[in-house]
Amino acid sequence: MSNRNRRILIRELPKGPLGPEHFETDETEVPQPGPGQVLVRVILLSQDAANRAWMQGATYRDAIGAGEVMASGAIGEVMASEAEGLTPGDIVWADTGWQEYAVLDGRAVQKQPDHRPLSQLISLLGVAGKTAYHGLINVAGIHAGETLLVSAAAGSVGSLVGQIGRLRGARVVGVAGGPEKCAWVRDELGFDACLDYRDADTPLPKQLAAACPDGVDVYFDNTGGDILQAALFAMNQRGRIACCGAVSMYDGKPKPGPFGIPGLVVVKRLRMEGFIVSDLAHLDADAEFDLAGWAADGKLKVVEDILDGLEQAPEGLIGLLAGRNRGKRMVRVGPDPA
Amino acid sequence: MSNRNRRILIRELPKGPLGPEHFETDETEVPQPGPGQVLVRVILLSQDAANRAWMQGATYRDAIGAGEVMASGAIGEVMASEAEGLTPGDIVWADTGWQEYAVLDGRAVQKQPDHRPLSQLISLLGVAGKTAYHGLINVAGIHAGETLLVSAAAGSVGSLVGQIGRLRGARVVGVAGGPEKCAWVRDELGFDACLDYRDADTPLPKQLAAACPDGVDVYFDNTGGDILQAALFAMNQRGRIACCGAVSMYDGKPKPGPFGIPGLVVVKRLRMEGFIVSDLAHLDADAEFDLAGWAADGKLKVVEDILDGLEQAPEGLIGLLAGRNRGKRMVRVGPDPA
Repeated sequence: MSNRNRRILIRELPKGPLGPEHFETDETEVPQPGPGQVLVRVILLSQDAANRAWMQGATYRDAIGAGEVMASGAIGEVMASEAEGLTPGDIVWADTGWQEYAVLDGRAVQKQPDHRPLSQLISLLGVAGKTAYHGLINVAGIHAGETLLVSAAAGSVGSLVGQIGRLRGARVVGVAGGPEKCAWVRDELGFDACLDYRDADTPLPKQLAAACPDGVDVYFDNTGGDILQAALFAMNQRGRIACCGAVSMYDGKPKPGPFGIPGLVVVKRLRMEGFIVSDLAHLDADAEFDLAGWAADGKLKVVEDILDGLEQAPEGLIGLLAGRNRGKRMVRVGPDPA
Repeated sequence: MSNRNRRILIRELPKGPLGPEHFETDETEVPQPGPGQVLVRVILLSQDAANRAWMQGATYRDAIGAGEVMASGAIGEVMASEAEGLTPGDIVWADTGWQEYAVLDGRAVQKQPDHRPLSQLISLLGVAGKTAYHGLINVAGIHAGETLLVSAAAGSVGSLVGQIGRLRGARVVGVAGGPEKCAWVRDELGFDACLDYRDADTPLPKQLAAACPDGVDVYFDNTGGDILQAALFAMNQRGRIACCGAVSMYDGKPKPGPFGIPGLVVVKRLRMEGFIVSDLAHLDADAEFDLAGWAADGKLKVVEDILDGLEQAPEGLIGLLAGRNRGKRMVRVGPDPA
């Protein structure tokens, strides 16, 4: 074990789109755990649009600021422990930030089940998989025969939402950026259709009307903005919108909300509900059982997009916000335990 | 019984604010019921902001158009019946429109319980009372100790929502227009506070912050627009917004929705849910039991605002949209049965 800790800090909080100039790298000594603490070696960082939202202010997590290590969930290995219930060799999920080693309070660390590959603790069985499962099953409530619309359909969550929707008997329409990605969503992930929000010839509302002649029953919203706007007009009576993220809104100035709030919500009796995955933690056992089962049966494709090396983290996140990922993006910081 | 039927028709659908010029009066013969139909004599018209929304296009009801009798729910008396289960003398609720007599399909008419005064079949036990009850209890779900915010607090629904909130142990803050109305909401209806959205000195968000130092748990939205915007920023984590109406949006051009949709919905995990009262019809017995009980015990003030004469209907609705009513506005078209 090296005694040096490479870290990526926030140099300056972005006022517009996130760029590499907002980060800087340093190196310190590996810190040592105090009473109640553990030292964690980071193996895989999870890259999430929410990381960018944290730079805008306090959300369900404290805001992060200039001079701090950039925050991020990660899978790591306990190297030294002064905390009850944790021992060296344990695999844990924690907010380690973008660095090679982190000292954390033992209560802020979640011991993980014995599962390989470790990357699936972030993708299928991690925040991405559980967000997709809980949002679709327990927040929106999807039913066989319904029409499901999913934005960011090629992303970590969207790619699973659509597949789970199909497994539950729904007709599934995705939204993604560019013809190549849309073809991949249809052909590789098995969506019934995928709409290209970047198509300059046919605006999204028109594509949506053609692809969903019977309207939309559930919209799983990862983006907000124009796609949410189009979905609101296409929703059926008693439709449900699971508000999972607003990636279109994170990387710029605040914009007014869509037309039809609250008018369409009243008239169509829509339910819009925001959630984060930990709200549904009491139902995690269902999610793990179903997700692991579907994957084992080959019914669910787990798409992972792993970049190699801590230094990739800034470009990885910037690219994620621009939609340049397919499936769950992660950054490998260190090797799996021997 | 006269054999003449006075009616008020839509002369022209409004493009901007509703005015008397959009209506015209005529007189026809009283129609006779055919097979399966009933003739209803109109006693009391219900005046509702939704009447205006129906002029904008199809909602949960077909749109209404020029040349038609203006639509409206009403309490009336069956005068002649060719429909099974309905006999002369029955008191019914139906969409009679603005006229003295209506012929309706027997299946479109709801027989009412034996209750006096008849006006309470529209206010306390009618759409207003049940909308308030179901929206607060069964859609938003209010809990003792929570803070409840209600817009259009002096209106038919709002005046009951706030009182029911107090009866369920919530702290209740209303929003109304003008100092006199606000004082009445506090002093006569017993709200803990009432904010004046017309106050030019202290903007609503500032009033709201002062009146709700612990944030808002449930917002009962009758208005949309600026009040919804202010509420969104004041909502607590896991707050619920019952979307009951959008009176600020009915009488003019479409406006973009509030800032923070869907960002705040995600981050605060809000639930926004639109409903109409008939969605909760399976729970009407609870509503009737509680509402009648509270009123009989003197715990609930039923505020009625009854205009006299069919010819008052246009000004009555125009005034309602401008907030010139207190409690449930109705128009008396004919006398109670002898």
